[in-house]
Amino acid sequence: MATTAIYQRIHNSFQRAGLLKTIGARLIRAEEGLVEVELPYSPAITQQQGGFHGGVIGTLADTTGGYASLTVAPPDSEVMTVEYKINFLNNFQGGTLRGIGKVIKKGQRIIVTTADIFHVNEEGKSTLCAVMQQTLVPIKKTY
Amino acid sequence: MATTAIYQRIHNSFQRAGLLKTIGARLIRAEEGLVEVELPYSPAITQQQGGFHGGVIGTLADTTGGYASLTVAPPDSEVMTVEYKINFLNNFQGGTLRGIGKVIKKGQRIIVTTADIFHVNEEGKSTLCAVMQQTLVPIKKTY
Amino acid sequence: MATTAIYQRIHNSFQRAGLLKTIGARLIRAEEGLVEVELPYSPAITQQQGGFHGGVIGTLADTTGGYASLTVAPPDSEVMTVEYKINFLNNFQGGTLRGIGKVIKKGQRIIVTTADIFHVNEEGKSTLCAVMQQTLVPIKKTY
Amino acid sequence: MATTAIYQRIHNSFQRAGLLKTIGARLIRAEEGLVEVELPYSPAITQQQGGFHGGVIGTLADTTGGYASLTVAPPDSEVMTVEYKINFLNNFQGGTLRGIGKVIKKGQRIIVTTADIFHVNEEGKSTLCAVMQQTLVPIKKTY
Repeated sequence: MATTAIYQRIHNSFQRAGLLKTIGARLIRAEEGLVEVELPYSPAITQQQGGFHGGVIGTLADTTGGYASLTVAPPDSEVMTVEYKINFLNNFQGGTLRGIGKVIKKGQRIIVTTADIFHVNEEGKSTLCAVMQQTLVPIKKTY
Repeated sequence: MATTAIYQRIHNSFQRAGLLKTIGARLIRAEEGLVEVELPYSPAITQQQGGFHGGVIGTLADTTGGYASLTVAPPDSEVMTVEYKINFLNNFQGGTLRGIGKVIKKGQRIIVTTADIFHVNEEGKSTLCAVMQQTLVPIKKTY
Repeated sequence: MATTAIYQRIHNSFQRAGLLKTIGARLIRAEEGLVEVELPYSPAITQQQGGFHGGVIGTLADTTGGYASLTVAPPDSEVMTVEYKINFLNNFQGGTLRGIGKVIKKGQRIIVTTADIFHVNEEGKSTLCAVMQQTLVPIKKTY
Repeated sequence: MATTAIYQRIHNSFQRAGLLKTIGARLIRAEEGLVEVELPYSPAITQQQGGFHGGVIGTLADTTGGYASLTVAPPDSEVMTVEYKINFLNNFQGGTLRGIGKVIKKGQRIIVTTADIFHVNEEGKSTLCAVMQQTLVPIKKTY
């Protein structure tokens, strides 16, 4: 697919996910094998100490890896996360999280991705916050 | 600590986490080495096909495992998730998710937990949805 | 399949794996959804401090979970590990490791298992050493 | 430490690990934050279909990531693997596996690494076989 068609495909799916709207995630980039999503800090997505909650860092990782896999999945399919594993490296308050998901293996039945989650502070300084490995399968699209 | 004191400790931390309020999670049980949290379905926490988003299933797993570890962490500490890995087994629309986190190793420096996430439908039928393994460390409490 | 047929299927595959003979692993039990393998300590399988090497603990976990999945895989197929995640809880010198793998989800395309690895010392005392979650797929049997 | 001192530190530990000798692993490179180990194919390390056993691929990943962490661990310490997660992407018979472990976070208490395992065939063609994420802690050296 052309990049525009890929972006549209991801955008259509993204818009349908209630959680992504709830937490304030924004689709930034979607091209073959790579998706970028950002998530600005807000009190609605914190943990008990005031930093970004691990749950939204995990959501960002799952989402960017998952949508990266959707860019290479068969037409008219959706994808389902089989599993992922995430390491948390640093935690921050304020600023914006930026997740980059990449396909590292496009198999017949299984797609494997990785995601890197960066924090970008008000001065634009970027720090790696989390790394993820993920396994997905294409599934029937029901919408 | 007595069970009441343990419950109070977890409850105090839980109340401070903006994300848990945002998604509608409720603390059900907290005793030594075990925490239970539930999360009713709502359109605010869905993925693109209308089921519970993997992000909130992951959040529930992270939260129940994490709070299970907090029940055994040194007094006046908090805990930080080093990493977790989650397998998604089944997905549902409607009903309620119920997460149960358990400590399986309380080490000097490292606490290891597991979490099982069940779906309970309107008729009360329970199905295992996800399983998680997690590593945490005690950290300084900043509040 | 009857338990005897299941055991025979696992035994046939087990015997073909050069590594399992090299490290001294022994098939103890194989029934529907459950496989048990043991591995006695020897200097040939140590890490630098003299304990069981994480590599053989991982091998035991991969093997018991993998063979548990083979007990429920379609006839005439083999299985392939897509991924696993293992937490190491305790390490020992001497004695025997005993791994127990179990199927927790038998899907159409994906099988998910867990494995617990125990250490049994000379007095028969058993301690949990490692826990694993694993994803597998059935593949064509080539022998 | 100078690169020579780092290499010597890793070499000394590597030589003590009975399993690495048993499977035929060879230390190729050790510098600050990076270690490379290779493992030639042999019938002693196969799975049931004749390919490299996942157990030795996991061992190679654990070893390269673990030794990468040892290059940055405090002097006179050893390291212990807390956990790892590995995705298997491709499997081969013959040739040589080449594992490259890298430190991605050197924390006060926790070191996080990744490892890429490549297969190199007789013509020198290199293919990514497995990717790993790993968590380690420094521990007391007992030798």
